[in-house]
Amino acid sequence: MRIKVINPNTTWSMTETIGAAARRVASPGVEIVAVSPKHGPASIECHYDEAMACLGLLEEVRQGEAEGVDAYVIACFGDPGLDAAREVARGPVIGIAEAAMRAASYVATGFSVVTTLQRTVVIAEHLVDKYGVRGHCRRVRASDIAVLELENPQSNAYRTVLDECRRALAEDGSAAIVLGCAGMADLCDRLGDALGVPVIDGVVAAVAQAEALVRAGIRTSKVGDYARPMPKAYAGSLAAYAPTAD
Amino acid sequence: MRIKVINPNTTWSMTETIGAAARRVASPGVEIVAVSPKHGPASIECHYDEAMACLGLLEEVRQGEAEGVDAYVIACFGDPGLDAAREVARGPVIGIAEAAMRAASYVATGFSVVTTLQRTVVIAEHLVDKYGVRGHCRRVRASDIAVLELENPQSNAYRTVLDECRRALAEDGSAAIVLGCAGMADLCDRLGDALGVPVIDGVVAAVAQAEALVRAGIRTSKVGDYARPMPKAYAGSLAAYAPTAD
Amino acid sequence: MRIKVINPNTTWSMTETIGAAARRVASPGVEIVAVSPKHGPASIECHYDEAMACLGLLEEVRQGEAEGVDAYVIACFGDPGLDAAREVARGPVIGIAEAAMRAASYVATGFSVVTTLQRTVVIAEHLVDKYGVRGHCRRVRASDIAVLELENPQSNAYRTVLDECRRALAEDGSAAIVLGCAGMADLCDRLGDALGVPVIDGVVAAVAQAEALVRAGIRTSKVGDYARPMPKAYAGSLAAYAPTAD
Amino acid sequence: MRIKVINPNTTWSMTETIGAAARRVASPGVEIVAVSPKHGPASIECHYDEAMACLGLLEEVRQGEAEGVDAYVIACFGDPGLDAAREVARGPVIGIAEAAMRAASYVATGFSVVTTLQRTVVIAEHLVDKYGVRGHCRRVRASDIAVLELENPQSNAYRTVLDECRRALAEDGSAAIVLGCAGMADLCDRLGDALGVPVIDGVVAAVAQAEALVRAGIRTSKVGDYARPMPKAYAGSLAAYAPTAD
Amino acid sequence: MRIKVINPNTTWSMTETIGAAARRVASPGVEIVAVSPKHGPASIECHYDEAMACLGLLEEVRQGEAEGVDAYVIACFGDPGLDAAREVARGPVIGIAEAAMRAASYVATGFSVVTTLQRTVVIAEHLVDKYGVRGHCRRVRASDIAVLELENPQSNAYRTVLDECRRALAEDGSAAIVLGCAGMADLCDRLGDALGVPVIDGVVAAVAQAEALVRAGIRTSKVGDYARPMPKAYAGSLAAYAPTAD
Amino acid sequence: MRIKVINPNTTWSMTETIGAAARRVASPGVEIVAVSPKHGPASIECHYDEAMACLGLLEEVRQGEAEGVDAYVIACFGDPGLDAAREVARGPVIGIAEAAMRAASYVATGFSVVTTLQRTVVIAEHLVDKYGVRGHCRRVRASDIAVLELENPQSNAYRTVLDECRRALAEDGSAAIVLGCAGMADLCDRLGDALGVPVIDGVVAAVAQAEALVRAGIRTSKVGDYARPMPKAYAGSLAAYAPTAD
Repeated sequence: MRIKVINPNTTWSMTETIGAAARRVASPGVEIVAVSPKHGPASIECHYDEAMACLGLLEEVRQGEAEGVDAYVIACFGDPGLDAAREVARGPVIGIAEAAMRAASYVATGFSVVTTLQRTVVIAEHLVDKYGVRGHCRRVRASDIAVLELENPQSNAYRTVLDECRRALAEDGSAAIVLGCAGMADLCDRLGDALGVPVIDGVVAAVAQAEALVRAGIRTSKVGDYARPMPKAYAGSLAAYAPTAD
Repeated sequence: MRIKVINPNTTWSMTETIGAAARRVASPGVEIVAVSPKHGPASIECHYDEAMACLGLLEEVRQGEAEGVDAYVIACFGDPGLDAAREVARGPVIGIAEAAMRAASYVATGFSVVTTLQRTVVIAEHLVDKYGVRGHCRRVRASDIAVLELENPQSNAYRTVLDECRRALAEDGSAAIVLGCAGMADLCDRLGDALGVPVIDGVVAAVAQAEALVRAGIRTSKVGDYARPMPKAYAGSLAAYAPTAD
Repeated sequence: MRIKVINPNTTWSMTETIGAAARRVASPGVEIVAVSPKHGPASIECHYDEAMACLGLLEEVRQGEAEGVDAYVIACFGDPGLDAAREVARGPVIGIAEAAMRAASYVATGFSVVTTLQRTVVIAEHLVDKYGVRGHCRRVRASDIAVLELENPQSNAYRTVLDECRRALAEDGSAAIVLGCAGMADLCDRLGDALGVPVIDGVVAAVAQAEALVRAGIRTSKVGDYARPMPKAYAGSLAAYAPTAD
Repeated sequence: MRIKVINPNTTWSMTETIGAAARRVASPGVEIVAVSPKHGPASIECHYDEAMACLGLLEEVRQGEAEGVDAYVIACFGDPGLDAAREVARGPVIGIAEAAMRAASYVATGFSVVTTLQRTVVIAEHLVDKYGVRGHCRRVRASDIAVLELENPQSNAYRTVLDECRRALAEDGSAAIVLGCAGMADLCDRLGDALGVPVIDGVVAAVAQAEALVRAGIRTSKVGDYARPMPKAYAGSLAAYAPTAD
Repeated sequence: MRIKVINPNTTWSMTETIGAAARRVASPGVEIVAVSPKHGPASIECHYDEAMACLGLLEEVRQGEAEGVDAYVIACFGDPGLDAAREVARGPVIGIAEAAMRAASYVATGFSVVTTLQRTVVIAEHLVDKYGVRGHCRRVRASDIAVLELENPQSNAYRTVLDECRRALAEDGSAAIVLGCAGMADLCDRLGDALGVPVIDGVVAAVAQAEALVRAGIRTSKVGDYARPMPKAYAGSLAAYAPTAD
Repeated sequence: MRIKVINPNTTWSMTETIGAAARRVASPGVEIVAVSPKHGPASIECHYDEAMACLGLLEEVRQGEAEGVDAYVIACFGDPGLDAAREVARGPVIGIAEAAMRAASYVATGFSVVTTLQRTVVIAEHLVDKYGVRGHCRRVRASDIAVLELENPQSNAYRTVLDECRRALAEDGSAAIVLGCAGMADLCDRLGDALGVPVIDGVVAAVAQAEALVRAGIRTSKVGDYARPMPKAYAGSLAAYAPTAD
């Protein structure tokens, strides 16, 4: 089984962190292909970044279809381009926010999301509604740390995120934490040990979920809303991205 | 890894069907323990049956804790006793309705549930709300076949369920089918081949989901609402079921 | 008219408190039969306790049908076994949470629930959604007092509950209080006098509601979802609980 | 106990029908005062009629406060002026739509409303949301009969309503019927006998509910949103309607 | 184009403030007719005031139909009589709460409403649900200032409202303010300058919205729920308000 | 005032139709700039097309900021890139689905959307929830006509859409129609005349709405979620799209 984990930002050091987390959770025999697009934003922190990241992300999915990929993980907590990617892919496509929030709902009646900058909170809030976990998500919290600062050893990211998690448990009545950024993947185990509740990283949750669906033989429905994009012309520099007949 | 699959009704032939489906989806090295309680209803088709099935079901979970079980699947589409079982268990506990409906929401924007008798529809409808998939579930449909008739070779169950699935695709605008009874597990592949859309059996979906959570290191939160039941006295014939201190 | 008030825990001193509250509100000529099951938990404080209490509770309803009972009240704020009891009963079955929350919605646009231990809060929250009073219920609050401590004269229960009610009025913008445990029935009048807003005990609300429905000639629909359980075999020690034909 | 049942339209023959239904359900010793305002619409079939009916309706509540009334019933299925009446009244004020829909939710998991003209459907739909019974109400149906035609012996109203109820049971999956007009009160018993499911008239349900709340000592909260209107000047012909200090 | 702006209270000094705000936003060539009814409450601060204000308000709409009015604005933040007015009018009828909240949702993902007295909060909350902006409205806040005090130069209204707006931005995570009373129209620009976020006055928003709909040729549908009231008799002093055939 | 109307597909003949509709509704003195991106899909009929259209669309908004544009209209019924565009723009940005659905909710209690291909229905359904008009939108219907066929004189598009509108009025209980594609702008008036109910084209509704907000002085909040994208590096061919400091 081959799972392609796409970090839709172009910071390869983060892609490596993500890939390592993915490989730790994958079963023996599952190949993890962790990539970043060649084109796009260095980090994704607003709707504009998300929209611009879709081009490279979808190109990776298109290539994946030629490479025999069985399932995809979109490793950015806003789950950008998820529905579009599902139209392109035959196997399942899993967003890390989607997988993490649903995983939390299996093991706690209430969880909090701890994300990066304040302006990403509204993006996560919309996903809470989209994924039907409003009844489980007690609050989405920002830790006020920029995405790329998570990689900066000087940034004290672990401490900052830990403190916000502690506030979440104390104030929100939550019994689990969802980490709101793929760049927090390597903080997950330490946070879990420190907090004594499930701390869920979306990369881990999504890779396990993708493998589970493939194993269960469940693939993206190609009837209806996730059918392949209809062939048509694309103008200008996007001509190469035009959907083609099989 | 050991996953205990509990068929909460006492019809062991159905338990065997369920166990076989579970074993087909489990990874190498995952042990499936498929059981039925000794006490309880032969089939579960209403709220009363559900309530009465909890006693034996929860006893199996309590025993599982002593047996080193890593995760549990409750193999009845009403997901009876799910929250209570989570209080008892340290590992994740997955209901088949929960897992199947969420699996469908990863691969289709709209699905239909095809269940057994008309009176089970309202039970499934409540689960649609509980699991936050109201936006995805287009309709819950009865096929008007009793649970135990699924096991009767004379009952023409496959044909009856297939016809209802076809109506679902034609009338509901759905792109995937969720089978609304654990007893349909062995119909799943044939239905999928005949219909050309994902057909999701809850046993398969739940076992894969349980394995995924264990692999991801995600266990039931023992803080808050799913903490272990507090020790106390139980009177009369239920004295042996009283929660005890660890 | 005969109303059977079932305290689903097995602490008879609490049953007596409940029965006394029921008799105070019942009209002349209405007979109150207040009982506890012989088998089951001494108090109900989590999902496991709820699930285990159903056996004895439903047995009392079955007996009630033979005893000419006109309506039932389930006197535990989690309303355990409510749907199952409605399948068994011909007359109306009223849960005290259901009746209390709806009564509050007739006399205030916003109310708070004050319950016992923190872990019962999520149970009440789910009932808020089930009964459609999310728009009215401003908050569910725990007073951090165990159910059986309500009966302990040393526990200072009145004061603890009063303080939590005062916080509810001050912080939640509520104009009424719903007491979240049948064991608080005898605190209700004193709290109402002290607070100057409606304080609603579920036992009182449910008995009045049950009487109202009987008087109005409104009984449980035996068509559809609350039809009698279908006759079938139950295995082992539960054989005697199997539904039978009329 | 004195319950004032206010038919907010000015058709006294309908008020008599309503009063008779109210008296049949009231307990011995409960006095029913059934009235219509002197000013206002002959029937209420749209938002404009509703708005205009409030003047007379609220005047009746104001007078009721001077007459020692313990509870009020607003006997029009749109529940016009309900919140305003609650500000004026010290005892509970019950709308017949509110009481009927909630009564239905105690005895069936799904009900249909059968009302008069098509344009009243949207009014009832809004009440379904306001009263939190969206999960129970399967459909609101018009029988295309004008309100005053219900009183016309030539109108064949019983047959028309019966046919619509039969369609509701067959097509909506409902197990109970709520009658969507106070003018249908005298059809209720015949319909129930013919249909074999609970048929709920709002006048009966509301009077029983009002009596239950009074008996339970539950009155309108005078703190917060239902506090008495603040004294102030009203201009012109409405000067006499100005709220005054107690 | 002629837009009639109806202040449903009878305080003409407020009507003048409202009219001035309306004229500032209207395009050249748009005539603003700002009126108060002759009959009704001096201010509208509770459901009773709202219900009583409908008589005069609807009379103004009826007269408007004879005067060639193209659109109406109801200039009270509770939007009293809105649905009834739409039945009477051929052109669009816009409530100021409706227009202001929707305008805010075009320019911010989260806004707070700052209204007058605490008891108007629940009225605004219900409108938040009615207009489908629950996902955008973070909180409705009272500034604890009575409506007519807004006109009192001694009342320090500007300062009081400004302080509440500041708390809204700091505590609610909002990015825009909706002013919750027509009497705040002349505070809007100063507040916007001081706060640096959009501050939206309903009169301005509604007049612009009304003009936009007229310009777009969009009028009230006279089919279905907003069809003209059916002709019928009204009794007593309301006889002159009876709907007539065209 | 300058309003930029962006047709996010690259079919300029459709852009001309859209521009003409926009100019007809704009006030004297309002300049309409109607454009298509140079790069992107010829039509937008699925999530993939939407995602790919964002690049050119957002480039047009960025240029608009340099050109002194006061407001933007995104003239594709899926409202692609709306939140991202709001981050970039200082003036309001209006989606045509958003404006059309809200306009309909001012003039009818129930409307139907008539769109193009079946697979666009789910996109519109999600917008119904996003914009809070679930209570008003009775149904989203496909007319099974491809977007570019609307421009083909042989396609009989008018007749096909008209027939679907008629079914909507007859079957959905709707009192207004929302046209679900910018390419239907020139059918709007004929449909309205034929149907006798409001038929709302999103281009017209959105241009009028944009003008109204500008006139009312309401601009996009630059605090919080719609603040300008933070400056950062974009890699590869997207480097030129990187957000810069002002």
